[in-house]
Amino acid sequence: MVTSVSNPKIKNVIKCIKQSKERKRQGVFIVEGVRMFSEIPASLHVESFATEEFYNRHEALFKDIQYEIVSNNVMNAISLTKTPQGVVSLVKRLDYSLDKVCSGDANADKDAPLIIALENIQDPGNLGTILRTAEGAGVDGIIMSSDTVDIYNPKVVRSTMGSIFRVPFCYVENLTETISELSDKGYETYSAHLQGVSFYDFDYTKPTIFCMGNEGNGLTEELSKETHHKILIPMKGRVESLNVATATTVLVYEVMRQRNANI
Amino acid sequence: MVTSVSNPKIKNVIKCIKQSKERKRQGVFIVEGVRMFSEIPASLHVESFATEEFYNRHEALFKDIQYEIVSNNVMNAISLTKTPQGVVSLVKRLDYSLDKVCSGDANADKDAPLIIALENIQDPGNLGTILRTAEGAGVDGIIMSSDTVDIYNPKVVRSTMGSIFRVPFCYVENLTETISELSDKGYETYSAHLQGVSFYDFDYTKPTIFCMGNEGNGLTEELSKETHHKILIPMKGRVESLNVATATTVLVYEVMRQRNANI
Repeated sequence: MVTSVSNPKIKNVIKCIKQSKERKRQGVFIVEGVRMFSEIPASLHVESFATEEFYNRHEALFKDIQYEIVSNNVMNAISLTKTPQGVVSLVKRLDYSLDKVCSGDANADKDAPLIIALENIQDPGNLGTILRTAEGAGVDGIIMSSDTVDIYNPKVVRSTMGSIFRVPFCYVENLTETISELSDKGYETYSAHLQGVSFYDFDYTKPTIFCMGNEGNGLTEELSKETHHKILIPMKGRVESLNVATATTVLVYEVMRQRNANI
Repeated sequence: MVTSVSNPKIKNVIKCIKQSKERKRQGVFIVEGVRMFSEIPASLHVESFATEEFYNRHEALFKDIQYEIVSNNVMNAISLTKTPQGVVSLVKRLDYSLDKVCSGDANADKDAPLIIALENIQDPGNLGTILRTAEGAGVDGIIMSSDTVDIYNPKVVRSTMGSIFRVPFCYVENLTETISELSDKGYETYSAHLQGVSFYDFDYTKPTIFCMGNEGNGLTEELSKETHHKILIPMKGRVESLNVATATTVLVYEVMRQRNANI
C-alpha cells in the first residue's frame, strides 16, 4: 500500500492535477469516482489509485488494469472532492481529427451528421453538460475554438458523466475559418443569435452544424457571418438570453424530434 | 462612507449571508451584482451597499432607494465573489400562494397554465437555471418539495439572472399530496421517468404540470404514481439520464413549440 504523498507516482498525479501544461505534456487527464472509473475504455487506461475499501468493494473492476492501493491520507491528497469516492485514475487523452469529428460515424444517421461548434465557452460545467446532452441527442461531434475551456479540466470531465469517452471532439486554431470551409462543403451552418429567425422554421434533416458563443458575449460577428442562418430561440418574459448549455439542448432536441418523427 | 465591518448594518448583512435561518427570520435575501441590482422591484428593495466607484458609474440606479456607500474592504467582506462588482443588496422575500403559482396569471395563455414541480432538487445551479429557462419558455409557476435547496441561497439567486423576481414559486409540505390534488383538478400531470413513454407522444396544450426528481435518484415512486403519465426523453449513446435542468428545458420547449405553432 502506498502511504506517502512523496511516492513518485503520487507526486506525478498531484502534478497532473495542478498543472494543465503537465497533463498536456504527458498526454493524460485525471478521472475520479466510481462512475467515471467504470467507463474508462481499456485502451486509454494508464493507472488507477484506489483505497483498500474501494478496491474490496469493486474488485471486479480492477481485472487486467494497472493499479496501486493507497492509504486514505494519500487519497485525500489526490482527490478533488471533499468526500473522495476512493478512486482516481490517469487516463490517456483522446485524439480525434476534424474529419473524424465531422464524419457522422458515431451514429446511424451517417448521411446527416449533427455537429456542435463552440466558440470561447468558459464555464467547465457548461462544457461538460453540453457533452452529456450531445451524446443523449445523438450529436456526432464537437468542434471547439482554441480559447474554449480545456475539456480535460477535471470539472469538465466530471460533469460529462462519461460522455467525454464517447463523443468525438477537437480544438481548431481558427473556428471562423473552419466553419467557413464546412459551410462550403455541404453542411448547413447555423449561428445561435439574438438577432436571428425562429429556429423552429428550419429543416434539420440535412448535415447540420450549430455554432454557440461565449456565455457573456455570444458569437463573434466574424463567425456568425460565415454561417448560412442566424437562428433565435424564442423567449418569453424578460429573459435576455438562455444559458449556452440550455440553448444547445433546445436545438439538438429539435433535431432529434425532426429526425425521429416516430420515436 | 462606511469603512468598518463592525458597522451594525454591515454586521447584519454578513449574518444574513452566512445564516439561511437569519435570512428567513428577517424575511430577506441577498442579491449581488449590477445585473441583479437593476432588476430588483422597488417594492422589494430594502437597502443596497455600493462602493463609491460603483455608485459614480451607476448613479441613476440609486434614485429613490435606500443605500450606503462602503469602502472596498467592506465590499470584500460582504461580497460572495472574488472580484466584487461593487453592489450588494438586501431584498424582501417574495410570498406566493399555491393558488397564485398555479393560476397561469403570469402569461397570456391563462386557460392552460404550465407548471413545473421539483422534488428534492439539491444543486443550486440546477435550480437557478431551471428558473431562468422557465421564464424563457413561459412557465407560469414552480412548486417545490420542502426538501428542495433553498431558492434564496445566493448561488441559486445569481444563476436565475433575475428570473427569481418574475417567476412565481412556492414550497409545499407534501408535494405528493399537492400533485395528487392538482391531478384531480384538471391539470394533466407528467413524471419525468426512465420507465416512461416518449414525451413527444403527448398533447401539452392543456393545463400541464411536469414533475422533475432529485439529481441522483429521480422522482420517488409515491409521487410518480400520483401523476397521469410517466414520460421519457429519448436518449442515444450510452447516456443513462440527462441533467435535471437539461431535461426540464427539453420538456418546456416542446410545450412552447406545440402552443405557438406559428412562432
